[in-house]
Amino acid sequence: MPDSPRASLRDIAADTGVSVATVSRVLNDHVNVAPRTRDLVLQAVERRRLRAEEPVRTRTVYVRCPYVLSDYFGLIVSSIAETLKLHGLRLLLDAGESAQHSDALTGLPDQDDVDAAILLLPPEDGDQLVTLSRTGFPFVVVDPRTPPPPDIAAVSAAHFSGARAVADHLIALGHRDIGVIAGPEDWLASDARLAGHRAALAQAGILLTPNRLRHIEPTTAAGRRAAADLLDQTPRPTAIACFNDKVAVGTLQAARERGLNVPADLSIAGFDDIDLSQATDPPLTTVRQPLQEMGRIAVTQLMRVLDGHQPEALHIELATTLVVRGSTSVCPG
Amino acid sequence: MPDSPRASLRDIAADTGVSVATVSRVLNDHVNVAPRTRDLVLQAVERRRLRAEEPVRTRTVYVRCPYVLSDYFGLIVSSIAETLKLHGLRLLLDAGESAQHSDALTGLPDQDDVDAAILLLPPEDGDQLVTLSRTGFPFVVVDPRTPPPPDIAAVSAAHFSGARAVADHLIALGHRDIGVIAGPEDWLASDARLAGHRAALAQAGILLTPNRLRHIEPTTAAGRRAAADLLDQTPRPTAIACFNDKVAVGTLQAARERGLNVPADLSIAGFDDIDLSQATDPPLTTVRQPLQEMGRIAVTQLMRVLDGHQPEALHIELATTLVVRGSTSVCPG
Repeated sequence: MPDSPRASLRDIAADTGVSVATVSRVLNDHVNVAPRTRDLVLQAVERRRLRAEEPVRTRTVYVRCPYVLSDYFGLIVSSIAETLKLHGLRLLLDAGESAQHSDALTGLPDQDDVDAAILLLPPEDGDQLVTLSRTGFPFVVVDPRTPPPPDIAAVSAAHFSGARAVADHLIALGHRDIGVIAGPEDWLASDARLAGHRAALAQAGILLTPNRLRHIEPTTAAGRRAAADLLDQTPRPTAIACFNDKVAVGTLQAARERGLNVPADLSIAGFDDIDLSQATDPPLTTVRQPLQEMGRIAVTQLMRVLDGHQPEALHIELATTLVVRGSTSVCPG
Repeated sequence: MPDSPRASLRDIAADTGVSVATVSRVLNDHVNVAPRTRDLVLQAVERRRLRAEEPVRTRTVYVRCPYVLSDYFGLIVSSIAETLKLHGLRLLLDAGESAQHSDALTGLPDQDDVDAAILLLPPEDGDQLVTLSRTGFPFVVVDPRTPPPPDIAAVSAAHFSGARAVADHLIALGHRDIGVIAGPEDWLASDARLAGHRAALAQAGILLTPNRLRHIEPTTAAGRRAAADLLDQTPRPTAIACFNDKVAVGTLQAARERGLNVPADLSIAGFDDIDLSQATDPPLTTVRQPLQEMGRIAVTQLMRVLDGHQPEALHIELATTLVVRGSTSVCPG
């Protein structure tokens, strides 16, 4: 609603195309106004009154996770849900594989009751995100699949340094022949982790050769196949660094099938530190990702964008922690 | 909008308290109408016109999961999300521990833009659910904590028959001294699973004695402590049936710490068949819960309630499946 009667007259004039003086005459019940004009003005007043009566809507954030809410994504989304609630915002969820084939982003800015978005590992390429950003619609990307465009707020884990810490740990244990089971080639997380592994190896004077590297979809079954492939070589690597914990579970299975003792014959390291990593025997050496923190920071970033501020840092990388458990030990022989 | 002009006259008359004849005179531009009445009618017409212009709002379902979206709840919520989307409905999510202390249910029926709810393992007691149901607000309970009141739609797994199948399996392997690590005493799932264990044991002429039974919060750490307690007895049980897979992982750890071979010295069974159950060594014999199906059926039930029908069956129990893996074998000796 307008702050003063004067503003109100001007608003109604603007709404109707009638002069401010005429609006004033209608509202003061002057007689010399044409009936049509009078109706026009009164209807515009009524429209404004109705609009002002609408309750203040709770701001709503569209959260899209194009994967099943597993121990990884589920933890991030739970944290986003709790933090949005703390801020008094509502969460509209789009989750599961079906969210991958959605063209929801194009329609987002036109949805009157959606104020912002948090996109987890979006399948869209950078150009599409830039297009969305240019509409002025506020959003934040969590765990970007490709390097986020410069103007887009993004939160991710420090994949590079986490992977470097794992490889440093294996090298410190005396391993020189290290296999790497990486994720899909076009994922930022996979690329950054692999770069971390390579960097640590290179610093120790070791080049990762193609016969020691596999790129796979990060599942337990694919991990088992890739590990079988690496372990059936002669000589076989003495350690394998895996893209994530699920892949590490598959690697454990492949080692067991070959009668290899982990960690005496083979060291295995995962990434993520999901529940799985403590259920295996031995439990997995891995890299803890701050999943809850990622959710919280994403919401904090979004609140700044929503309030019309530019976040201080657009791309935030959260530190990871090396967690040493029983699946890694000194190089045999 | 009214279907016919006549309905429209009647609607406007009802809105304004003016006679149908007068409304008709105003709309046909008759002169003998008092200016105030004329304004009243025209404003009512305008209000109806504006309302009809409002875009049709997408129906929205409030989904509350008062736990972190782990491999268990996350899978159910993902399935609910995908199924709601198929039906063209939106999902408003409230998830995480903070959703436990929420008094959201009381305000739900007053929220104009929330049409229905799906409540996972609600902390409220039956009376509160009945109170919500009496307001006419449509909702469905998934995995009820306490027996659902007669008029309330609920979907759960067949805990009783699943647990009976596990105990039957252990008995068929020759086990007679079976320990049970149950969940919290006041949970329906825990009560029903324990009843299933007891029923199978009783059919084999065995009574579950208090020294073979523990009630715990279903976590790996609590499972490990409870299993340690059971395994330190003399004689110790030859098999342990666990409330869920996390508890079974803790039981595996306690067995390993005592130098017991699983399954040669001790058989262990879980429940749920989450990812964990295949990461352990040996992999767990467990009971598969149809988590995705639970989500789908919950939405189907809700659609019936939303469309004003009574679901054919208010309380649906979905069949579970015994999955036999390496953690159970014939009774030693």
